[in-house]
Amino acid sequence: MRIKLTVAYDGTNYNGFQCQTNGVAIQDVLNGAISDLFGTPIRTIGASRTDAGVHAEGNVAVFDVETRIHPSKIAFALNARLPEDIRVVESERVPDDFHPRYQTTYKTYEYHILNRVHPDPLFRHTEMHVYYPLDAQKMNTAAQYLIGEHDFASFCSSGNSTATTVRTITDASVTRTGDRLVFRIRGNGFLYNMVRIIVGTLLYIGDGRWEPERMRTIIEARDRHEAGPTAIPKGLVLVGIEYPDYVRGEE
Amino acid sequence: MRIKLTVAYDGTNYNGFQCQTNGVAIQDVLNGAISDLFGTPIRTIGASRTDAGVHAEGNVAVFDVETRIHPSKIAFALNARLPEDIRVVESERVPDDFHPRYQTTYKTYEYHILNRVHPDPLFRHTEMHVYYPLDAQKMNTAAQYLIGEHDFASFCSSGNSTATTVRTITDASVTRTGDRLVFRIRGNGFLYNMVRIIVGTLLYIGDGRWEPERMRTIIEARDRHEAGPTAIPKGLVLVGIEYPDYVRGEE
Repeated sequence: MRIKLTVAYDGTNYNGFQCQTNGVAIQDVLNGAISDLFGTPIRTIGASRTDAGVHAEGNVAVFDVETRIHPSKIAFALNARLPEDIRVVESERVPDDFHPRYQTTYKTYEYHILNRVHPDPLFRHTEMHVYYPLDAQKMNTAAQYLIGEHDFASFCSSGNSTATTVRTITDASVTRTGDRLVFRIRGNGFLYNMVRIIVGTLLYIGDGRWEPERMRTIIEARDRHEAGPTAIPKGLVLVGIEYPDYVRGEE
Repeated sequence: MRIKLTVAYDGTNYNGFQCQTNGVAIQDVLNGAISDLFGTPIRTIGASRTDAGVHAEGNVAVFDVETRIHPSKIAFALNARLPEDIRVVESERVPDDFHPRYQTTYKTYEYHILNRVHPDPLFRHTEMHVYYPLDAQKMNTAAQYLIGEHDFASFCSSGNSTATTVRTITDASVTRTGDRLVFRIRGNGFLYNMVRIIVGTLLYIGDGRWEPERMRTIIEARDRHEAGPTAIPKGLVLVGIEYPDYVRGEE
């Protein structure tokens, strides 16, 4: 049967989610725990590559196994075998043809910024520190231009290999709570480094260098050079992936 | 002149704030950075001992030095010398007779609980994981009995050495946001392990073992055996210390 795992991790100590030729990836560790549990080599298929240092509350991976363990209990058995910076937060059976990437999904990301003079050591791995003042309202105004179907080529690093750079963004917002800003974005797909380049652009708007309306110009330019820099990875978290076409199995 | 530092730290890797005979304390590292900056051995006086694994957003330490560095800039110079799990978030000049402990202060603590089936690796060092359901409303009802002047001997570990166990609590609340509970408490003093024992007691109320009204009975008993267990340190953070009698310097 096919098992779907929802995986949360602190990406600080890993070379991204997907197995690479260099460095330890989260998927390497996950595959190891699954293989250990079932006593046979098992490889997962992951939904989203996340870069080194990027975090997740709900990335998705699937694998096939024959077992008597109840699907919902697999999470507990894996967590007993995983390091504490990786946790399976849900395990469930899905149809045998369920694939984590080949269907319409919606992903939600958040980017966390601490906006005050000195850094906060308690959240040093999960937020970007910006010491100069940011105008969250202007950043939020700019974020609204992202909503809808657009060609996001301006927000795409050269490593991108997808056929089209058109994506649909359903939600985008910047909110401030005290010293902390959260950029939240939901869409049907994201290009390579897209969220981090958007954040780099929003920072240029938040500090007053650019006006919020420039976001529209940047989108229309379809040119990476028009956008801001790529924001550092540690502020980014993949919050979750929705599979609207998938009817949840009865376990 | 006397310099007051407001210090934030991730207590995970330290044996508490105050210098001890065993293990490295946050104060050891802080003293080292200050001594290095000014080129002479300097020892700080700390406001609050926090236990191993307990965190702070605003502990306080003072020291005396003759320097031309502007007091507000000392924080930057120290942060360049401190490990990233300790940060000075403010430095200012205070009167020469300012002592961080010998006056009326109000301290605010928070205790963070993640209340869901599986842990969250992203906040594994800064929150307690409770997998069984907790009733935050009942816990909040119980917390209200703490407000006022009471003898808190029931919430005091045997290591306490203060003359009296009477303290005044001005605010106490339990709030839930999604899967997360925050217990916040403010008072003019806290006994050894007091907040963590209160939290252990609140957990017995949140899981239905005890009714909220039992908090009153426990306070009146003035007996440590009547209260719940001492909650683990990592969920606790010293949010800040207020010095109402102290007029902020002109720096």
